[in-house]
Amino acid sequence: MNRQELILQIRKKSSYLCIGLDPDIQKIPSHLFTYDNPILAFNQAIIEATSDICVAYKPNVAFFESLGLDGMKTLNDTRSLIPEDCFTIADAKRGDIGNTASMYAKAFLEQMNFDSITVAPYMGKDSVEPFLQLKDKWAIVLGLTSNKGNLDFQKQLIGNVPLYELVMKTTMKWGNIDNLMFVVGATNEEDFAYIRTFCPNHFLLVPGVGAQGGDLEKLSQYGLTKDVSLLVNATRSIIYASNGKDFAEKAREEALAINEQMQSLMNKYC
Amino acid sequence: MNRQELILQIRKKSSYLCIGLDPDIQKIPSHLFTYDNPILAFNQAIIEATSDICVAYKPNVAFFESLGLDGMKTLNDTRSLIPEDCFTIADAKRGDIGNTASMYAKAFLEQMNFDSITVAPYMGKDSVEPFLQLKDKWAIVLGLTSNKGNLDFQKQLIGNVPLYELVMKTTMKWGNIDNLMFVVGATNEEDFAYIRTFCPNHFLLVPGVGAQGGDLEKLSQYGLTKDVSLLVNATRSIIYASNGKDFAEKAREEALAINEQMQSLMNKYC
Repeated sequence: MNRQELILQIRKKSSYLCIGLDPDIQKIPSHLFTYDNPILAFNQAIIEATSDICVAYKPNVAFFESLGLDGMKTLNDTRSLIPEDCFTIADAKRGDIGNTASMYAKAFLEQMNFDSITVAPYMGKDSVEPFLQLKDKWAIVLGLTSNKGNLDFQKQLIGNVPLYELVMKTTMKWGNIDNLMFVVGATNEEDFAYIRTFCPNHFLLVPGVGAQGGDLEKLSQYGLTKDVSLLVNATRSIIYASNGKDFAEKAREEALAINEQMQSLMNKYC
Repeated sequence: MNRQELILQIRKKSSYLCIGLDPDIQKIPSHLFTYDNPILAFNQAIIEATSDICVAYKPNVAFFESLGLDGMKTLNDTRSLIPEDCFTIADAKRGDIGNTASMYAKAFLEQMNFDSITVAPYMGKDSVEPFLQLKDKWAIVLGLTSNKGNLDFQKQLIGNVPLYELVMKTTMKWGNIDNLMFVVGATNEEDFAYIRTFCPNHFLLVPGVGAQGGDLEKLSQYGLTKDVSLLVNATRSIIYASNGKDFAEKAREEALAINEQMQSLMNKYC
């Protein structure tokens, strides 16, 4: 999916909501255990209940990989269940030397046909570039993450700029607004105002809303642009809104509540 | 495998050689295509020809993942073929928030039973710690990598130390010499002398020897300690020494040549 198509979907659905798919066998409703593949049944129900009101899905690859081969098959099958009008993100945070990065690009962007993959920047240019080579595919590079550990390195100053800013500015030279997004966590909303001074147009993928406590109103105020350019992700607050038979219905209610807020924020700031 | 056992194996074999397993369907000998699983047949032959003269194997997860589900099964099967007296490294370079990192630790260190996994440090403490919790298992954190891109961020100064030094010093507070190693590339051998000033005892996993051109003599001079504390990896120069029917034999010859050099370097510097 290219940038124009993504913006079109956002406008059409009045939503910049991305739903994270972190299916945890410990947390999914117990009635699903009658299915051959409870995880897939869970993902399918969530997708069917929400695909008209969100613009993207972000399966967290670790949750599938930890289930072994069956898990990777489930990831593949889950990808196939996501309708074409939704943007797909393999949250894999890969980063390796050139020939290895090319292998990962092939696995996620071609074979599994995800629109995008999250990428770790520590190894520099040759580890990121292979994800920027495919038409209408995207690298989503870690900028400032939403976890406590972001203080350890990302906020350390290099000269007078924090590492995450150097990472974003440098990576912006390797890609463009049509093939490169950044992960920016929602836990410090004021950071968005600052980030928009040096990164005015790139899409930002924003984890940390919902269970992690980020404030949608504030980050939207600072982060939205005339092309919207935000994908705000919520996972646990939506997919685990209920652990009863009504889990999909409750997931939809949660997503709708976020969407109502998004619609009004888009009217106000875009 | 714990530190004492690893050092014992190194002493026993007079070798600190790690062999990388990056099985590329484009590069393996064509006669293997008569096998049901040519990649597995290739790995098996390499392992059988070299396991008495190396101390570790490092499958590069991307090369398996890019082959889809069958590839991940082959990774699993390859792991099972590695004898117990060899240290095993899942070269996966994972790094994610705590609950996700725990999933990766489970997948690679428990389910697939690797001794260790390579870990990307960008997301900080909570992304590394889950890999340091399991008995006799190891996190091998990226310090200074061997690719060109190491200049982009790893060698940038934070205060008066390069980022990779801050990463190593900080991570050393989270783990210890029994559960934490670092990746340090072989392309700048003088860096080893410097790194040993602030990291005198941790094992270093050193890619970049062989096809990538690192100098074994120099890096060993600067990097070896009384407990050896180096694992030097070679991949392409060994596993692709020949693409004929003699590939396993030639791989053994290459490994033996490196080992002879290692034996004399251990006598000199350990």
